Amino acid sequence: MTSTPEKSVSAREITSEDIFRAHESGKLSVGLSAPLETQRDLSIAYTPGVAQVCTAIAEDPALRKDYTWTSRLVVVVSDGSAVLGLGDIGAAASLPVMEGKSALFKRFAGLDSIPLVIDSKDPDVIVETLVRMRHSFGAVNLEDISAPRCFEIERRVKDALDCPVMHDDQHGTAIVALAALRGACTVQQRELRDLRVVISGAGAAGVAITDILLASGVSDVVVLDSKGIVSADRSDLTEVKKALAARTNPVGRTGGVVEALDGADVFLGVSAGTVPEAAVASMAPDGIVFAMSNPNPEIHPEVAQKYAAIVATGRSDFPNQINNVLAFPGVFKGALDAGARAITEEMKLAAAEAIVSVIADELAVDRIVPSPLDPRVVPAVAAAVAAAARAGE
Amino acid sequence: MTSTPEKSVSAREITSEDIFRAHESGKLSVGLSAPLETQRDLSIAYTPGVAQVCTAIAEDPALRKDYTWTSRLVVVVSDGSAVLGLGDIGAAASLPVMEGKSALFKRFAGLDSIPLVIDSKDPDVIVETLVRMRHSFGAVNLEDISAPRCFEIERRVKDALDCPVMHDDQHGTAIVALAALRGACTVQQRELRDLRVVISGAGAAGVAITDILLASGVSDVVVLDSKGIVSADRSDLTEVKKALAARTNPVGRTGGVVEALDGADVFLGVSAGTVPEAAVASMAPDGIVFAMSNPNPEIHPEVAQKYAAIVATGRSDFPNQINNVLAFPGVFKGALDAGARAITEEMKLAAAEAIVSVIADELAVDRIVPSPLDPRVVPAVAAAVAAAARAGE
Repeated sequence: MTSTPEKSVSAREITSEDIFRAHESGKLSVGLSAPLETQRDLSIAYTPGVAQVCTAIAEDPALRKDYTWTSRLVVVVSDGSAVLGLGDIGAAASLPVMEGKSALFKRFAGLDSIPLVIDSKDPDVIVETLVRMRHSFGAVNLEDISAPRCFEIERRVKDALDCPVMHDDQHGTAIVALAALRGACTVQQRELRDLRVVISGAGAAGVAITDILLASGVSDVVVLDSKGIVSADRSDLTEVKKALAARTNPVGRTGGVVEALDGADVFLGVSAGTVPEAAVASMAPDGIVFAMSNPNPEIHPEVAQKYAAIVATGRSDFPNQINNVLAFPGVFKGALDAGARAITEEMKLAAAEAIVSVIADELAVDRIVPSPLDPRVVPAVAAAVAAAARAGE
Repeated sequence: MTSTPEKSVSAREITSEDIFRAHESGKLSVGLSAPLETQRDLSIAYTPGVAQVCTAIAEDPALRKDYTWTSRLVVVVSDGSAVLGLGDIGAAASLPVMEGKSALFKRFAGLDSIPLVIDSKDPDVIVETLVRMRHSFGAVNLEDISAPRCFEIERRVKDALDCPVMHDDQHGTAIVALAALRGACTVQQRELRDLRVVISGAGAAGVAITDILLASGVSDVVVLDSKGIVSADRSDLTEVKKALAARTNPVGRTGGVVEALDGADVFLGVSAGTVPEAAVASMAPDGIVFAMSNPNPEIHPEVAQKYAAIVATGRSDFPNQINNVLAFPGVFKGALDAGARAITEEMKLAAAEAIVSVIADELAVDRIVPSPLDPRVVPAVAAAVAAAARAGE
C-alpha cells in the first residue's frame, strides 16, 4: 500500500511485547455455523439426525461438498523447511506463520482455513499424508517448502488430488509480480513482450515468476542464482536449473548481476542477495526495479529510485508493496467457488489481470498495484479466476 | 435429560428437510482471535512480526503451546469404519459426524476442534499420519473406528504421542456408563462391588465398560457378543475376546443373554442386539437396565420398566439419557488445562465421579445422570480430570 507518515510511524512502533501478546494462545478459533443450545439442535446436528446426511454422502460422494465445511476449507500445509527468511526451522516453529496465513484466508476471502504442519521433509511422506486426508479439506495451500523439493511436491500433490492446489511461495508471488509489472507497463505505455527482464533468485519464487512471464509473452528473461547467471554452459546446475537455463537467457549471457543488469529493463529480486548501486545505474532508461526480498530489499528503494523510473518492494513502509495477499485469497476463493479441480495457468494469468484492473484508473509511478487492504481486490480476483476455471472446463 | 412432553414433541417434529438444511455448507467455521484490519495488525500477526514468534519456538519448542492454537485444539480423527449405527461408510461420509463432534467440543468445553478423516483402515497408516502431524494439534479424539482395530490404534497412538488421546466410543461411553451406574447405586443405596453385571456387546464400548467397572471394584461381569457369553471355553474368540474372557465371567457361565441375565443385577446394552422381555423379567429384584443402543434400545424402556427398578437409554426422549457428551468435553478440557501428556485411568474414574456428583442432591430413579445440557457438568468434569492429571504427575 502507499506509505503514509502515520502508518510508517505506527509500524516502527511495534514492539516484541506487542507481537508476543498478539500471538498468545494462537490466532485462530473454531466457530459453529448454527446454535447448539437445545436438545432439538443436538438431535439435528448430531445423533440421530446426522446419520441421514452421512448416508446421503455415502450414496453420493459429491454431496460432501454441499453438506460439510470442506467446500470452503483450505489447508495451509508446510514442513517448515523454508519459513520466511528464517530457513529450515521445522514444522512446530513454522506454525505461527501458517496460522497467520489461515487468518488471512478468512479475513480477505471469507474462506475457512486450518494449518497442518508435517514433521517430515520427505516428499513421499508429504504427498502421501495429504492423499490420505483428501476428504478432510477442499483445497491445499502449500507454504514455505524449500526448493527444489517444492516443485516436485506441488506437482505430485496436484496430480494426486482433484482439488485446487497451489504453492503460494511460487505462484502467489508470481501472480502479484506479473500484476505489478503489468501495472508498471501501463504507466509507462510499454508492452510486456518488449522487456528485457532479470530475475535474481532461482528458488520457488524465481522459477514461478520466470514461467508466468514467459507465459505472458516476455521473451528475454535472465535468471541469477547465488553463483551468477543460470546458463546452459554451467556445470553446477541442478535438474530444475538446467531446465530453467533451457527456457531462459536466449542470447546466452554469462557472468553475475552486473553483467545481467547492463541494459536491462526490469530487475525482479526474490533472493537474499544484494545488488550494487552501479548495476542498477547501468540498466536501460525507464528501468523498473522490484526489490521484493523481505525484510531487506536487494537494494534500498531510495537508492534504486535515483536510477529507476519505477521501484517496488515487499515492504509496507514504501510505495508499491508487492504482497501475496493480493493474490492467494482471491485465487482460492475463485477456484472453490467454481468447483475447480485444479488451479491452472489460465487462472493465474486471470488473477494477475484482475489485480491490476482494480486500479486501472488510478495507476501511477508510485501506485502500480492496489493496497493489500483494498476491498475491491479479492472479489475481482475471485470472479476472474472462477470465470477462467469455468472457461477451461 | 429428563423427558418433557414439549421436548419429545419437538424431537419428533424434526424432518429430513430440517436436518439437511442445518448441514448445508457444514457446521464449522474458522474465526480470528484478533482483528486483521490495519497494516499494523498485518505486521504483527503476519510478516515481519511473526518471525519473532517462530524464532522463539524454534529455540524452545515448549513455547508452541503458548503461542499457537494447538494448546486448545482437539483433532477428531476417524477412518469412517464404524460410524454411528451405519457401519463402515468410509472417511468422506463420516465427516458430518466428525464436524458435529468438533462442534460439541466447542459448544460444551470451549475447545477448538477440527475433523480429520483418514482414507485408510490400516492401523499403521492411521498411527503414522497422526505422528507426522503431531505438531498441528494438542489432543486426539479418535472416533467411530471399528473394533478390534480401535484397541490397537488407540494404544499405538497413545504410545507415540505425548498428548491426550482417547477413543471416545470406548472411554467416553465407559465413563458415562459408570457415572450412571454410580447414580443408580446411590439411589438404591447399593454398592457397585456387590453388583452382578451383564454387558451385551464386546466391541469398543463393551470392552471399555468392562474395564472401567473392573477398575471400580465390580467383580462379576459377564460379557456377551453376538454368539453368546464370552467364556474361556469358546474356540471362536479373537485375541481381544480371549483376553476379555480371562478377566470376566468369574463363575464360568455359558449360554446366551437368557442364561446371563438370570438373577443378574445390571444389564448394560451397547450392541445392536435385542433382549427378550422374559430375560429382563428373570433378573434379580431392583434390577438396573441400561439399554444404550441407538437409535433402537436393546429393549424398549417402557417394557424394561415393567421389571427393572431403574431404566436408562441413549435417547433424549426417555428419562436417564446416557450420552457421551457428559464426558468427553470435560475430559479433554481438564487434560489440556492440566497440560497432561495422556488420559489415564485415574482421570477417567475422576470424570465419572464428577458427572454424578453434579446432581448428588437431585438423584432419583428417573434422574441418575445429569442432562447433557446441564451447564454444571463440564466445569466439574474438567476440574476433576485436571486434578487427577496433576496428582498423577
